[in-house]
Amino acid sequence: MSFALTLPDGSKKEFESAVTVSELASSISTSLAKNAVAGKVDGEVKPLDFSLAEDHEVAILTNKDAEGLSVLRATVAFVLEAIVKEKYPEIKLGQAEISENGFFIETDKEDQIKVTELPELEKALQKAVKNGQAIEHVQVAKSELADAFKDDPYKQELLANYGETVDAYKLGDFVDFGFDALLPNTGKIKKFKLLSVAGAYWKGKSSNPMLQRIFGTAFFKEADLEADLKRRAEIKERDHRTIGRDLDLFFVDPKVGAGLPYWMPKGATIRRIIERYIVDKEVAAGYQHVYTPVLMNLDAYKTSGHWAHYREDMFPPMDMGEGEWLELRPMNCPSHIQIYKHHIRSYRELPIRIAELGMMHRYEKSGALSGLQRVREMTLNDGHTFVALDQVQEEFARTLKIIMDVYHDFNINDYYFRLSYRDPKNTDKYFANDEMWERSQSMLKAAMDDMGLDYVEAEGEAAFYGPKLDIQTKTALGNDETMSTIQLDFMLPERFELTYVGADGEEHRPVMIHRGIVGTMERFIAYLTEIYKGAFPTWLAPVQAEIIPVNLDAHSDYAKKVRDELIAKGFRAEIDFRNEKLGYKIRESQTQKVPYTLVLGDDEMNAGTVNVRPYGTEEQNSESLDEFMDKLSKDVASYSRED
Amino acid sequence: MSFALTLPDGSKKEFESAVTVSELASSISTSLAKNAVAGKVDGEVKPLDFSLAEDHEVAILTNKDAEGLSVLRATVAFVLEAIVKEKYPEIKLGQAEISENGFFIETDKEDQIKVTELPELEKALQKAVKNGQAIEHVQVAKSELADAFKDDPYKQELLANYGETVDAYKLGDFVDFGFDALLPNTGKIKKFKLLSVAGAYWKGKSSNPMLQRIFGTAFFKEADLEADLKRRAEIKERDHRTIGRDLDLFFVDPKVGAGLPYWMPKGATIRRIIERYIVDKEVAAGYQHVYTPVLMNLDAYKTSGHWAHYREDMFPPMDMGEGEWLELRPMNCPSHIQIYKHHIRSYRELPIRIAELGMMHRYEKSGALSGLQRVREMTLNDGHTFVALDQVQEEFARTLKIIMDVYHDFNINDYYFRLSYRDPKNTDKYFANDEMWERSQSMLKAAMDDMGLDYVEAEGEAAFYGPKLDIQTKTALGNDETMSTIQLDFMLPERFELTYVGADGEEHRPVMIHRGIVGTMERFIAYLTEIYKGAFPTWLAPVQAEIIPVNLDAHSDYAKKVRDELIAKGFRAEIDFRNEKLGYKIRESQTQKVPYTLVLGDDEMNAGTVNVRPYGTEEQNSESLDEFMDKLSKDVASYSRED
Repeated sequence: MSFALTLPDGSKKEFESAVTVSELASSISTSLAKNAVAGKVDGEVKPLDFSLAEDHEVAILTNKDAEGLSVLRATVAFVLEAIVKEKYPEIKLGQAEISENGFFIETDKEDQIKVTELPELEKALQKAVKNGQAIEHVQVAKSELADAFKDDPYKQELLANYGETVDAYKLGDFVDFGFDALLPNTGKIKKFKLLSVAGAYWKGKSSNPMLQRIFGTAFFKEADLEADLKRRAEIKERDHRTIGRDLDLFFVDPKVGAGLPYWMPKGATIRRIIERYIVDKEVAAGYQHVYTPVLMNLDAYKTSGHWAHYREDMFPPMDMGEGEWLELRPMNCPSHIQIYKHHIRSYRELPIRIAELGMMHRYEKSGALSGLQRVREMTLNDGHTFVALDQVQEEFARTLKIIMDVYHDFNINDYYFRLSYRDPKNTDKYFANDEMWERSQSMLKAAMDDMGLDYVEAEGEAAFYGPKLDIQTKTALGNDETMSTIQLDFMLPERFELTYVGADGEEHRPVMIHRGIVGTMERFIAYLTEIYKGAFPTWLAPVQAEIIPVNLDAHSDYAKKVRDELIAKGFRAEIDFRNEKLGYKIRESQTQKVPYTLVLGDDEMNAGTVNVRPYGTEEQNSESLDEFMDKLSKDVASYSRED
Repeated sequence: MSFALTLPDGSKKEFESAVTVSELASSISTSLAKNAVAGKVDGEVKPLDFSLAEDHEVAILTNKDAEGLSVLRATVAFVLEAIVKEKYPEIKLGQAEISENGFFIETDKEDQIKVTELPELEKALQKAVKNGQAIEHVQVAKSELADAFKDDPYKQELLANYGETVDAYKLGDFVDFGFDALLPNTGKIKKFKLLSVAGAYWKGKSSNPMLQRIFGTAFFKEADLEADLKRRAEIKERDHRTIGRDLDLFFVDPKVGAGLPYWMPKGATIRRIIERYIVDKEVAAGYQHVYTPVLMNLDAYKTSGHWAHYREDMFPPMDMGEGEWLELRPMNCPSHIQIYKHHIRSYRELPIRIAELGMMHRYEKSGALSGLQRVREMTLNDGHTFVALDQVQEEFARTLKIIMDVYHDFNINDYYFRLSYRDPKNTDKYFANDEMWERSQSMLKAAMDDMGLDYVEAEGEAAFYGPKLDIQTKTALGNDETMSTIQLDFMLPERFELTYVGADGEEHRPVMIHRGIVGTMERFIAYLTEIYKGAFPTWLAPVQAEIIPVNLDAHSDYAKKVRDELIAKGFRAEIDFRNEKLGYKIRESQTQKVPYTLVLGDDEMNAGTVNVRPYGTEEQNSESLDEFMDKLSKDVASYSRED
């Protein structure tokens, strides 16, 4: 018997008898043997003791490989499971999961594990690392594992997917399964950190019990762990939920409604300014703004196809009696179609642009809800344009220009374009109208090219009903997010039998263009909160000037005079009348990220000036109130733009 | 046997034997006998042949009495029933009803009676009047009537309320019951008019069949009928539903949702301007505007008591799974309470004023829905102030001043104040807190007196939870309507356990003040449409300037230049590019009630001026564009005010 192992560089090594991954590494070099954490055999991660006895492609995974890091993290997760099981024999364990961000294990016990217990668990982990216990890789009969987990319904459910013999790992008395590969000894674990605890439904299903997840991460090098913890702190600092709480922008209380945000006065001010900005922008661009009901007869969603394909994301319909069933709308398209259909339309009127701040409701599992980012009630900056096919290119370009203009105003620079076509090899998967697809796809492409824009082309990523452009932004947390979209729709005009009278006096079918500029108010403001880190630019800041009298007795009247003048000019100013030290109030104003802090004492009162401290600087400028208001006005007029 | 009849002037007439009402009239005077239409016997209306045989108080009703008019109208209704029954033997008849506005009869037949049939029915009525047939007043056995109406379930249902013998009237073969008194002959009918046809559920219950009501009216004198028809035309001209259709402001389509209005672009523009106006006004007055969800956990409405007492007016709750039931809110109070409760509140913060354009849903029977006036989805200009008891008077006065200020801006002058107290004789019917009731009632009164305002006092008209002020306006149709309200509430703060920390460091209960300034956007704009007859003042007009080029070829470019300048300055202008005659376009602009029509020809183009025709005048002014824009600006800044 002889076989060959092919290494990543293409070289082959011949063996006469079985070798383990570990032995293979040793046969290549001592340093490789030392750094080896697992092997990759024909594309699958296998432990160091995995036996190679026939032809394979094999790579040795080390502490430099992403998959090597996963092996390290899986090992920490496994040891952590063993530790909690030893500490709480009655605990039940769910799944351990490894990701590019770290790992978590799932636990279920009556008295839930608290975040305050993490240091203790970390200490126990540390001790296990120090003790250097062996982690044994074994083949176990399924029945033996079933017995070991006889009180643990989660593990039993997982076990059901396995055959009669299961790959498992043992640490002392503890046994677990479901890992591709673990390190052979706890002493091989390097740097780790337990991060947080959070509830999650078993398998993400809200009808299942809620488990406690313990999150952690691990690295081979101290420096990598430190960089990761720093990044996490940064994320936390930018998290709109944290900022939203600290700046009193909004809250969600599952007791009164999961995923239903309450906008506190400061958050509501930001939202109102953005709503007015975008409505004014659209009206100036020829959109006709409307108000349409949040409820609609269920029949309309049957016609649109939403009820057939989208029901899971919709709220339960309401029986109004007399055969009427009303549905909270999951989108505004059918409403705008009603507006279009209310009159006979002529080609002379096209393009007809209907827009609305349209409130919608979508059912999301409670586990998926998050701050303003994932909600059940949302208000979309929605618009639908009805055009003749030959107007598609011009209208598309026009819409895109508005979007880019708005991005410029909000100083959104980190984005790219993705143009999605139907799959040319599977045209029968799409709405059937070849001419429309071909002409419109080439029009979208031509528009992008004419505008000199770079874009990614994605064949097969179009919607069923038409091609689209998505504008992808990066969130502050580094995630890709579709901020804006321009989607052509050939289907709804057909389903709702939309027509316009052409120059020929005949009825024609318009094309419908769905488009969002800033998306929902909820998600957009979550996004802005994160990219601005809560320091909203002057035009959006709920308080633009925080006025602090040096001495409440001596300077309050002057402070009120300044405030009243600012308010009379339409600025947002408030006075800190609290009985606190000056230094404290100034720091508070910075913490609240107010663009300008005005400190008013004798000098200012006597000279009729204001002492201005712009946010985030060490500057202190003495200015006349008029000078300051001039600056404020310019600031507001420049939106968030930096140029 | 001898008895005395006491007449309205107190005089008594003695009789030895029974007399009819008619004979009594004759015994008084010939003219009275001639004008008599019925009698009023001990407060009840009785026919002329009613026999008087013992002591009674009796008045003779003539064509001068309101009740005499009702007898005339009842007679027309009865004859009309006989006519339709003769014409359509298979028809079923519901109830005939007489009101101060006229009468209606209810009919049910498969092929419904149409408004186009009214002239024919009127002719038949006319013929009956001319023929002068006798209307016989008879006592009939219930069984005989039951037989006559054996195919008519409505009459049978009505008959069930009667004893064994029923007062009925006969005209030829036709018999009917349920009238206090009818005239004795069709020839006595004077002026009448059939007005309209409309569907209505039997007994107003939507689970019952829909009947067709035929509406009409009748008078003794031609001049009275003419005045009434003129008033009706005026009402129709002001009807916001008619104007809303003609000016393309909104529509309601029961097929997509009964009582759920769609605001077309022009109506939406008016609404947006009003929303911004009122929000700005409130923010300037110290209100903190918020956005809160339209959905709330049903439990909150159980706590508030709405679910127990108000369920019939609420939408069906939605089962969200996991034991969560969500309810479309019927009012915003519990939402604003959440905002209040989100922080610990200090006496220093009071009054805390929370406001919102709050969307709400109320279940109304489909028969009760009407245009924008009675809807199922509405957006309320809502506000809640939380105050200490000793702040009630000042806050009340402050709120009232804002309301009057807003009325002035909208030129609403026809209103009065109604102050409602608890019933001093039934204090146990109200929320129990004597001190609060007494102090607050006297504070409201004192505030009104301090402001020098007249008001109506209504004991026993307070809400269960506190005293209130209603501001009653007259609609253009002459109906009393509560436009604004300021209501104190002692109960909700108790139920939701609201507190603030007082100067003494202890927890205290605030008083909550509910207040609406312009009510719902829907009803307010219905009201404005009617009082302005659709001629919205410049600041609200969806189109402020309609631009008409004298010649499309020659003057369109100049028209565009004028339009673009107007739009750049924030005005709303459009050009009539249609291929129509100049005169037609000018008339159209008047029909659309655009405040200013600009006609642009050679003279204007060469001089760089505009020819301005203000709405509703014969004026034509040649002005520079700057002059015109100055005028527009002033116009806008003055709102709807006339002074």
